[in-house]
Amino acid sequence: MDNRRSDQVPVTVYDGENLSREKALLVREVPLTLYVNGEELLTLVTTGDANRELAVGFLLSEGFLKDPAELASIREDAKKGVVEVTLAGDTGVARRLWQKRTVTSGCGKGSTFYLVMDSLQTRPVESSLTVSAGQVLALMKKLHEQSALYRETGGVHNSALASAEKILLFRDDIGRHNAVDKIRGATFLGGIDPADKLLVTTGRLTSEIVIKAAKMGVPILASRSAPTTLAVELAERVDLTLVGYVRAGKMKVYAGPQRITP
Amino acid sequence: MDNRRSDQVPVTVYDGENLSREKALLVREVPLTLYVNGEELLTLVTTGDANRELAVGFLLSEGFLKDPAELASIREDAKKGVVEVTLAGDTGVARRLWQKRTVTSGCGKGSTFYLVMDSLQTRPVESSLTVSAGQVLALMKKLHEQSALYRETGGVHNSALASAEKILLFRDDIGRHNAVDKIRGATFLGGIDPADKLLVTTGRLTSEIVIKAAKMGVPILASRSAPTTLAVELAERVDLTLVGYVRAGKMKVYAGPQRITP
Repeated sequence: MDNRRSDQVPVTVYDGENLSREKALLVREVPLTLYVNGEELLTLVTTGDANRELAVGFLLSEGFLKDPAELASIREDAKKGVVEVTLAGDTGVARRLWQKRTVTSGCGKGSTFYLVMDSLQTRPVESSLTVSAGQVLALMKKLHEQSALYRETGGVHNSALASAEKILLFRDDIGRHNAVDKIRGATFLGGIDPADKLLVTTGRLTSEIVIKAAKMGVPILASRSAPTTLAVELAERVDLTLVGYVRAGKMKVYAGPQRITP
Repeated sequence: MDNRRSDQVPVTVYDGENLSREKALLVREVPLTLYVNGEELLTLVTTGDANRELAVGFLLSEGFLKDPAELASIREDAKKGVVEVTLAGDTGVARRLWQKRTVTSGCGKGSTFYLVMDSLQTRPVESSLTVSAGQVLALMKKLHEQSALYRETGGVHNSALASAEKILLFRDDIGRHNAVDKIRGATFLGGIDPADKLLVTTGRLTSEIVIKAAKMGVPILASRSAPTTLAVELAERVDLTLVGYVRAGKMKVYAGPQRITP
């Protein structure tokens, strides 16, 4: 398997008058099967890069993994599209929850919904970070500038971990959940503390994205897209600052406005 | 529970200079738990309308249900957010596949990936439908015009079943998968034959959307967004016409161009 993340394909283009044969770049979509302690857990479909980060981010999001000490080994076979993770801790509870999972907004991830809500309730985000609205706008602009694959193919969502001043980690994927999980995995593997940072993304803000951000421990989640009622409710409950519609020099702060200055 | 699908919430708006307190409309996101033959299958997160159609569409997509005769009963408790489906057929195979499912583009749905691919290979789409590029553009325009909830909240994807001339069924949801499953469920429950119709949607065209369209039996799938490599590969394999980037008077036909005329 090569490392390209897009392929050129023949396409029939309608320009408003005629049909003609041209070439177009498409984002690659490939399966990645995740094994935990020797057992097949699931197959994700992804852009096929940052597979270890995606696997770790996914396991963190699903509650299989909490502490770096629990991560005994990660082995990747990129050619076969396989990541094998060995966990030192007990994964029994996570496995049982996994069987009765929530598929959120038809965009599925595990964990029983109400248990997740309960666990969030006990762990509010703690951070004294404040940023200016102008800094949030500048970060969203940088997120777009870094996204070559989006400009080429139109088929990915972007996510970044950022300080108030700059983007520290950038990842993209065909799924908005995967893009966030890759950031979460990279942050965890790199030993980066997210408590004074922002998570900036292009995807819509549904409950599961807020849950990922809150579990990760970032105090501010910002997107160019819209949130849902439940996303705002959860953000308020865990004291996460939720910013949507960051575009055209404007934005809306749906929760935790104390962290955003004019 | 009332029937509204959006809620007004207080929001802090940054207009480029100042922060001010305003009101904003958000799309509702509510959990819907699906029981099959008395057992809890999963919890979806959805806009909370068309719950029966969503449940049936989901079970069709996941292989629990194939024939109308298998659907013994559907009972909905909207207040509790529960749909209980009783199936007459054997759901053993579907249940086993469900345990080892694919989460596609971080936007998850069940079914082991390669088995789905195999089952598709044996069932190419059969239809003599052709439509003009102008008709596809007109349908996409009508899809946007019908979407009051999108205009109000920015938080949903839209899908429609359409003839060459007009939209026959319109559904929306916070998830692009759910919006398509609602259409699939409504088509199934209404006894509508999709073989001479189009599936028109706003979401990105990843493999799982192509799989849903192919299993449903529509010959043409059109979206304003981009496809992935795997979506195009699958569409070619089952002879589905795949149209992307339907916007600004133009479009790109990635597979099955014989069904699109200038």
